[in-house]
Amino acid sequence: MPTAHPSSYPLLQSIGEPADLRRLPRGELKPLADELRNFVLESVSRTGGHLSSNLGTVELTVALHYVFNTPEDRLVWDVGHQTYPHKILTGRRERMATLRQLGGLSGFPMRAESPFDAFGTAHSSTSISAALGMALAAKQKGEDRRAVAIIGDGAMSAGMAFEALNNAGVSDCNLLVILNDNDMSISPPVGALNRYLAQLMSGHFYAAAKNVGKQVLKAAPPLFELAKRFEQHAKGMVVPATLFEQFGFNYIGPIDGHDLDSLIPTLENLRDLTGPQFLHVVTKKGRGYGRAEADPVSYHGPGKFDPAVGLQKATAASAPTFTQVFGQWLCDMAAQDTRLVGITPAMREGSGLVEFEKRFPRRYYDVGIAEQHAVTFAAGLACEGLKPVVAIYSTFLQRAYDQLIHDVALQNLPVVFALDRAGLVGADGATHAGAYDIPFLRCIPNMSIACPSDENQCRGLLSAAYAQNHPVAVRYPRGAGAGVAVQPGLEALPFGKGEIRRAAGLGGKPREPGKGIALLAFGTLLHPALAVAEKLGATVADMRWAKPLDLELLLQVAADHEALVTLEDGAVMGGAGSAVLEALQAAAILKPVLQLGLPDRFIEHGDPVKLMAMQGLDAAGIEKSIQERFPALVEKAQAALKLVA
Amino acid sequence: MPTAHPSSYPLLQSIGEPADLRRLPRGELKPLADELRNFVLESVSRTGGHLSSNLGTVELTVALHYVFNTPEDRLVWDVGHQTYPHKILTGRRERMATLRQLGGLSGFPMRAESPFDAFGTAHSSTSISAALGMALAAKQKGEDRRAVAIIGDGAMSAGMAFEALNNAGVSDCNLLVILNDNDMSISPPVGALNRYLAQLMSGHFYAAAKNVGKQVLKAAPPLFELAKRFEQHAKGMVVPATLFEQFGFNYIGPIDGHDLDSLIPTLENLRDLTGPQFLHVVTKKGRGYGRAEADPVSYHGPGKFDPAVGLQKATAASAPTFTQVFGQWLCDMAAQDTRLVGITPAMREGSGLVEFEKRFPRRYYDVGIAEQHAVTFAAGLACEGLKPVVAIYSTFLQRAYDQLIHDVALQNLPVVFALDRAGLVGADGATHAGAYDIPFLRCIPNMSIACPSDENQCRGLLSAAYAQNHPVAVRYPRGAGAGVAVQPGLEALPFGKGEIRRAAGLGGKPREPGKGIALLAFGTLLHPALAVAEKLGATVADMRWAKPLDLELLLQVAADHEALVTLEDGAVMGGAGSAVLEALQAAAILKPVLQLGLPDRFIEHGDPVKLMAMQGLDAAGIEKSIQERFPALVEKAQAALKLVA
Repeated sequence: MPTAHPSSYPLLQSIGEPADLRRLPRGELKPLADELRNFVLESVSRTGGHLSSNLGTVELTVALHYVFNTPEDRLVWDVGHQTYPHKILTGRRERMATLRQLGGLSGFPMRAESPFDAFGTAHSSTSISAALGMALAAKQKGEDRRAVAIIGDGAMSAGMAFEALNNAGVSDCNLLVILNDNDMSISPPVGALNRYLAQLMSGHFYAAAKNVGKQVLKAAPPLFELAKRFEQHAKGMVVPATLFEQFGFNYIGPIDGHDLDSLIPTLENLRDLTGPQFLHVVTKKGRGYGRAEADPVSYHGPGKFDPAVGLQKATAASAPTFTQVFGQWLCDMAAQDTRLVGITPAMREGSGLVEFEKRFPRRYYDVGIAEQHAVTFAAGLACEGLKPVVAIYSTFLQRAYDQLIHDVALQNLPVVFALDRAGLVGADGATHAGAYDIPFLRCIPNMSIACPSDENQCRGLLSAAYAQNHPVAVRYPRGAGAGVAVQPGLEALPFGKGEIRRAAGLGGKPREPGKGIALLAFGTLLHPALAVAEKLGATVADMRWAKPLDLELLLQVAADHEALVTLEDGAVMGGAGSAVLEALQAAAILKPVLQLGLPDRFIEHGDPVKLMAMQGLDAAGIEKSIQERFPALVEKAQAALKLVA
Repeated sequence: MPTAHPSSYPLLQSIGEPADLRRLPRGELKPLADELRNFVLESVSRTGGHLSSNLGTVELTVALHYVFNTPEDRLVWDVGHQTYPHKILTGRRERMATLRQLGGLSGFPMRAESPFDAFGTAHSSTSISAALGMALAAKQKGEDRRAVAIIGDGAMSAGMAFEALNNAGVSDCNLLVILNDNDMSISPPVGALNRYLAQLMSGHFYAAAKNVGKQVLKAAPPLFELAKRFEQHAKGMVVPATLFEQFGFNYIGPIDGHDLDSLIPTLENLRDLTGPQFLHVVTKKGRGYGRAEADPVSYHGPGKFDPAVGLQKATAASAPTFTQVFGQWLCDMAAQDTRLVGITPAMREGSGLVEFEKRFPRRYYDVGIAEQHAVTFAAGLACEGLKPVVAIYSTFLQRAYDQLIHDVALQNLPVVFALDRAGLVGADGATHAGAYDIPFLRCIPNMSIACPSDENQCRGLLSAAYAQNHPVAVRYPRGAGAGVAVQPGLEALPFGKGEIRRAAGLGGKPREPGKGIALLAFGTLLHPALAVAEKLGATVADMRWAKPLDLELLLQVAADHEALVTLEDGAVMGGAGSAVLEALQAAAILKPVLQLGLPDRFIEHGDPVKLMAMQGLDAAGIEKSIQERFPALVEKAQAALKLVA
């Protein structure tokens, strides 16, 4: 794909790094920002990626690099999907065409990618903690640098951000927290903090003028200040701008985050103040692109599109995603059982809960970006006889691990965890990988883990999970499955039971008893396993449950084959394959087992099909691994295959 | 131990359950509270346990059970170590002599123990989430009950509590949050919230009178209210009581938590209000027992003592605990390396950081009860070239699991995790067990895990961890080790290397090559392993590292023995033994392996030595398990032993 014609971006083209930006006359910043916005729009329309949030941070990014001495001063972008303007201004303009692609730029800040990416982010609400660490390190080392955390209002609602504010507010260091308030996380805003911020904004201009006057320009004597407060009371215009002040920050704002003439002088003043500073900036998601302003949710993370036309509705009905299968199951089960309640930590769209919220608004709980609370809240609901289903990405359940152990599993409460985005997630990369859930859940007593191999089984295993009187996680990957038709019923598949999916030998002939290889698949790798088995005359078991293991099936298969291969789309270390090894040893069965799954390293972003192939987890890779590990068995099978043919 | 003479507690004796309490005339509540306080003091002095916090909640507990219709109304006690008065009033008075002992009462609320324990707690800051779940469940089911969360000021500083407040403040349900403000978590209070609460308290009487007047008794017209605020401004007595109001709660307080005449009418009024209510109660830890009031830290969790004499200094110098060994190492390493910084989430005493704080106050960070923030803060420090050591209990690291993955391991930052309380913890029970860290850390790329077998090795492995350029956890148990002398140096043990500790055969004779059993110990189970090996003529390897495994040692031992036994004081599922199984299969070595460690169930509180024996993890149990799994090998060894003898 050709990059845009350089002449469209004459100013932007001159910015090789932020130092170039800082040499521009002030008057050229506005036209630069306009070019930057156009570049972002054009670039994302060609690659797909995050759009609304990046259009919203154009001026803020220009102002930050203009005022602060980056990379010596540290910028920590919370969540980080709004850093495309930052990437473009920090030497990565030309590489934007490779965004989120294999070998290309990450969709998030990444320390390995650029010295301007002071801290890698992706999961929400880490920025204040990291920036505080950097600010206090600078203090300890006697280095005169600033640390700036830029955090959205959604991310600010997570407990971790509060912990950091609570700690930072009593720290004596040069920390600036910028609240980028656009009144929208991915799901609509919820919670008291959002309501509070809306109050702040309703008094916007009045408060902005007074606060800037009072605290930055230091022009307000105490008596004036007192008079102002009296005046506010008298007018009923009490703006409770004190929440962040109560935390020890000098609070400034709200100011218009698209107005460089507000942003730059305010940031310049703040740069020169000591102690924890808090700047409240108001921006608009999708700013400057009418379609995204009108519908920031749809334009949050679009695929490729024509900016002149906008997003088009998907034309052909494609296979349903696991997310959609879950969403449909949830509605169907809720219609049948009034005890069901659905919980999401701010991922209504991603987790497939839009329809559930519409149909069962009183049993739908979006608790905000608050995974810890979500899980213990579910435990509380379960104590009262309700049946909570927590819809959460595998990677975000890591945020609520203690709550899962201490509040749910230890009390053995019947909470269903619908774990979306298990395995590799593709373009979002290593930060979002759902690679660790089998190991980290398997070691917890009372937990069960189901790994559906296709969409229909996903539905049956969700019903099975729901029928249990203890916690169960059902993990399923991003995107569509094998395209299996989904049956409408709510029958539960048997708990802890797998099934043989391929028992025949080579070319349809019966297998010699006790001979050959058996593949044990946990999850969607069943499908490449079946393809490989066809070539090797192998048995294939769809294990379905990583915990409890179907011991009966396992021991029967182990007794009847010379070698086993386990397959899972999660970390091999401690995963389902290890459960197989443990069970075999406990039964005193010695059998060679090849464990296939994700290796012990973080895996980059890119096309998930390619990524899986690179890990040797497509059919060709699986076959190759089996051949390397069990050459004699494979040779024998291939010789037999020739005979059959 | 006989219980106290009944005549000392005439009123208390009449309370079989809270319904009895509610039948008492109001005038008898004060004498009842006095008896209850004496009973708590006498009881804890006999059993050991938590004291200061329980003396502080006597009146609050009486008032809650008097005003609320427990157990129909739900009390959720945050942390839960302050629930002895609650246990005594809810039918467990006689069993207090069994507190925290095997088969006895838990030191925390436990759903399985009593219907009055609405929610099991122990880890901090879960109560508001759970109580909100209960309140919303009651609403959904149309049940007219209340849910009350009682949370300390320390616990309130954790992000999870904030997440719950943020969610609850916009929920329409009958939830009461009681802030039990005693200005002391286990470590001294830190952070902006604590400072803010202190401000509230400084305006105590004034604010209390006005708030009770305004919001509970509803006697204040808006004009009066406005006048009052003007008056406050005029007097410079602005009490910013609005933080919790900003979160959508009706805030009442602060009131005296030892004054039943304040507590009861206030609670009665609050009980009848709808929507989220917030009561700020001020109590004194250790209240009524002078020694504990004067030194609530020492009396936080004392052993047995004579109330007339108070705690006695330990007389004989006993073997140092692992915690002490860590604390000493930290000071020594900090003296040598100015880059070292120490971080604790509010566990200065428990984690052995008292001396470090004294000697290196500018490199000591107590971030409050904020595990998530602690870990990402450490990541920020590490980005700037400092060397953070996060001192955290194994069980509390569960709270920062995502931060460890996403912020530390993914960026491969050199953070040392000093994991105290690994394995079973004894009296604190299942909630505090450090049983899962090997499985949950092992699956994370870039992480290493060291398991010292004794105090001296702990020091050497801490130095080894510190010398790495990636994250390393060093896990060690509660209490003293084998009593090995600790060398003063800072030499690092080799990274990823174990050692053979016993190579000889039976009775000092050389072993027949390729024969016999080898025990592979990860951690302190090395010592019973050595004892057992003496009787079986077995080889013993001290593996030291669960990740990376010492493959060279493992393969050598495996090749040279008929059977292996792995030992660890953590969950077997996915643990170090599973790492051994994985490594053997990867090397295509088939060898019988017996995995010994903690079983797949939560293990109750009690004497840790007994608990380990009950899991078969003392020498006798280990020998028995080996005998059952490898009877022929053991028989052969025993026959040979007879020959030698």
